[in-house]
Amino acid sequence: MSYSSKYMRRAILLSERNVDKGGGPFGAVIVKDNKIIATGVNSVTAKNDPTAHAEIVAIRKAAKKLQTFNLSGCEIYTSCEPCPMCLAAIYWAHIDTIYYGNTKENAKEIGFDDSFIYEELKLSLPERKIKTQQYLSDKALGAFIKWNAKVDKIVY
Amino acid sequence: MSYSSKYMRRAILLSERNVDKGGGPFGAVIVKDNKIIATGVNSVTAKNDPTAHAEIVAIRKAAKKLQTFNLSGCEIYTSCEPCPMCLAAIYWAHIDTIYYGNTKENAKEIGFDDSFIYEELKLSLPERKIKTQQYLSDKALGAFIKWNAKVDKIVY
Repeated sequence: MSYSSKYMRRAILLSERNVDKGGGPFGAVIVKDNKIIATGVNSVTAKNDPTAHAEIVAIRKAAKKLQTFNLSGCEIYTSCEPCPMCLAAIYWAHIDTIYYGNTKENAKEIGFDDSFIYEELKLSLPERKIKTQQYLSDKALGAFIKWNAKVDKIVY
Repeated sequence: MSYSSKYMRRAILLSERNVDKGGGPFGAVIVKDNKIIATGVNSVTAKNDPTAHAEIVAIRKAAKKLQTFNLSGCEIYTSCEPCPMCLAAIYWAHIDTIYYGNTKENAKEIGFDDSFIYEELKLSLPERKIKTQQYLSDKALGAFIKWNAKVDKIVY
C-alpha cells in the first residue's frame, strides 16, 4: 500500500463536517488493501468521552469490524498529527503507516493540548503536572507473576 | 482527597481476577469524593479493542456516569503505571492524581510494550518505527480555521 490523496481528502472532509456538527476539527480514516475499513471523528464533547479522538474512534471501529485487536496491514489517514494518546493507540494496534495533515503545532495554535502532553510525557514522574505516586508495588506484582506463569495467555 | 490503600487494593484485585478470566493483568479504579465512580480491566483481547486498557475503560465509564468529558476532581488508582496512551488520556480527562502499583519496567519484563512506546514518543517523526508522513497540510488547515472562527464551540 502507499499514500492515496483520496483517503486524506476524506479524513479532511470528515474533520470539516465535524466542526459544522459542533465537534472538534478532527477526522480519521483506516484503510486496508485499498479499502476503507472505518472512519472516525472527534466525539469528545458529543459523547462525553475524553478518549473519543478521531483516531481512537476509527481504531475501535476497525478492530470491531475486522474482529481483531491487531490492525497490522492497515494505514491511518488523519487530518491532524496524532496526539500522544492516539499515537500510542496506533502502536498498540500495530498499524503500519500514519498519514497526517495538520501538525501538533497547528493544533496548539487553536487551543488543543497535544504539544503540552507530548512535553509532559518526556518528563520524569516527579516533574509532571499531574501528581503521580507509587504504592503497594509488592502486592501489585502478584498479577504480573500470575500472568507470566499462565501458559494459555493471549499475548498482544 | 488523598491516597487510600483501599482503592489501590481494589485495582490490584481487579488486575488479578482479570488474569483468571484470560485478560491482561491490569485493573483501574476512578475515585471522586471518596467514592468509586468507575472501574476498568484490560479488555483488549476479550473485546477486540486495542484501546481497551484498564485506565481507558475506567475513564470512559466514569465520564459516561458523570455525564462530562472533564474528570477534574477525580483520582485514578491503577495496578500499573499508565502506558503513554492511558497517561495522555488521563491528561485529556483532567484527572487530578495518579496512584499506581507496578512500573512500566515491570510491564516490560512480562512482555508489554509500554517502555518501547514511551521511547518512540520521544523521537522525531522520521526516527520512529511507524512510517509517518504529512500530506495536504494546506487543505487540512481549513477545518482548524473554521473551528477557530466558530463562536459557539465547546472547548475541552
